[in-house]
Amino acid sequence: MAEYIEQIERLADNFRKLGGVGRKSALRMAFSILEMTKDDAESFADSILAVKNEIGYCPRCMNISSGGLCSICDDPERDGSVICVVEDFRAVIAVERAKGYRGLYHVLHGAISPMKKIGPDDLTVKELLARLQTDNVREVILATNPTVEGETTAMYLSKIIAPLGIKTSRIANGVPVGGDLEYTDEITMRRALEGRYDL
Amino acid sequence: MAEYIEQIERLADNFRKLGGVGRKSALRMAFSILEMTKDDAESFADSILAVKNEIGYCPRCMNISSGGLCSICDDPERDGSVICVVEDFRAVIAVERAKGYRGLYHVLHGAISPMKKIGPDDLTVKELLARLQTDNVREVILATNPTVEGETTAMYLSKIIAPLGIKTSRIANGVPVGGDLEYTDEITMRRALEGRYDL
Repeated sequence: MAEYIEQIERLADNFRKLGGVGRKSALRMAFSILEMTKDDAESFADSILAVKNEIGYCPRCMNISSGGLCSICDDPERDGSVICVVEDFRAVIAVERAKGYRGLYHVLHGAISPMKKIGPDDLTVKELLARLQTDNVREVILATNPTVEGETTAMYLSKIIAPLGIKTSRIANGVPVGGDLEYTDEITMRRALEGRYDL
Repeated sequence: MAEYIEQIERLADNFRKLGGVGRKSALRMAFSILEMTKDDAESFADSILAVKNEIGYCPRCMNISSGGLCSICDDPERDGSVICVVEDFRAVIAVERAKGYRGLYHVLHGAISPMKKIGPDDLTVKELLARLQTDNVREVILATNPTVEGETTAMYLSKIIAPLGIKTSRIANGVPVGGDLEYTDEITMRRALEGRYDL
């Protein structure tokens, strides 16, 4: 496959690692770098290192943060009595994008998966429990993914949170808005029917 | 637009500069970097700098090269008596991909454009003429782009090469193979008719 100059092949291989980038696109991107000014290329390389080196985790919710508390935990307007538990920072972005939610988050950094040998100790469950004991929380919304691992994790968390006397809830399953019933899978459809509400 | 952590926004902005990358894809790519190991991210940044710092120009044909003659000029199997003149290294790749051409190249690094104030002195025309005087060339194929600038450049070159007694030719215009006549523009169609050949 080494059709081009080695440095270009190597850069294209790196672009392919980003996911969703095919060989042609990766080569096109590598050519763009070749045609950039030296300053722009250096700034690009530097911005990659900055993302890796300067972004860490919020000490409270374990979301990504560029230093100290993340912007959500640091916002005095947010309601600290509700915590939405998610698997990763992408889920935080998805919930934030929906607007409306004004509580805080807790990022687990994964989900329980016996297959992948990931147990509660590999996640930030300990940190979550510590928050529940000190932060005066009244509700924990379990917003792990609607997958086997996500459901398992939500079940596990609701069980260990119950003794603390804090309410736990799970985000609803159902037909996605704008979706077509024809293409809705059976399990989603069953959940949508079970979760029907009165009009 | 600064919806995310500054470092992520900056990296996404850089990905957008690659062309053909929208904001959503750029953010997805930035997230991928965030999730890479530190080693992979460093190797990525390094490969960007390598493309910029280690790739220069072939002293003979002005194509990109990672040091000394490019792989085409350096290939003793290539026919040095034919030179294919192109605007940039992407065109070299396009001609090479078609296979079949066994001569050498000359990369102009642009085309004559009075609008953009690019004249022959801004291109590698001087280097081309030097080759024609020393390298025993019998044909120059003018493969600049089929645009106003490319045609102007081809015309200009054919005129200054004529006194040297070297044959010049221009790549054919016509209907692209696999294309649909319905969507062929008028100029291309006229050229295709003019260039018709006997069966």
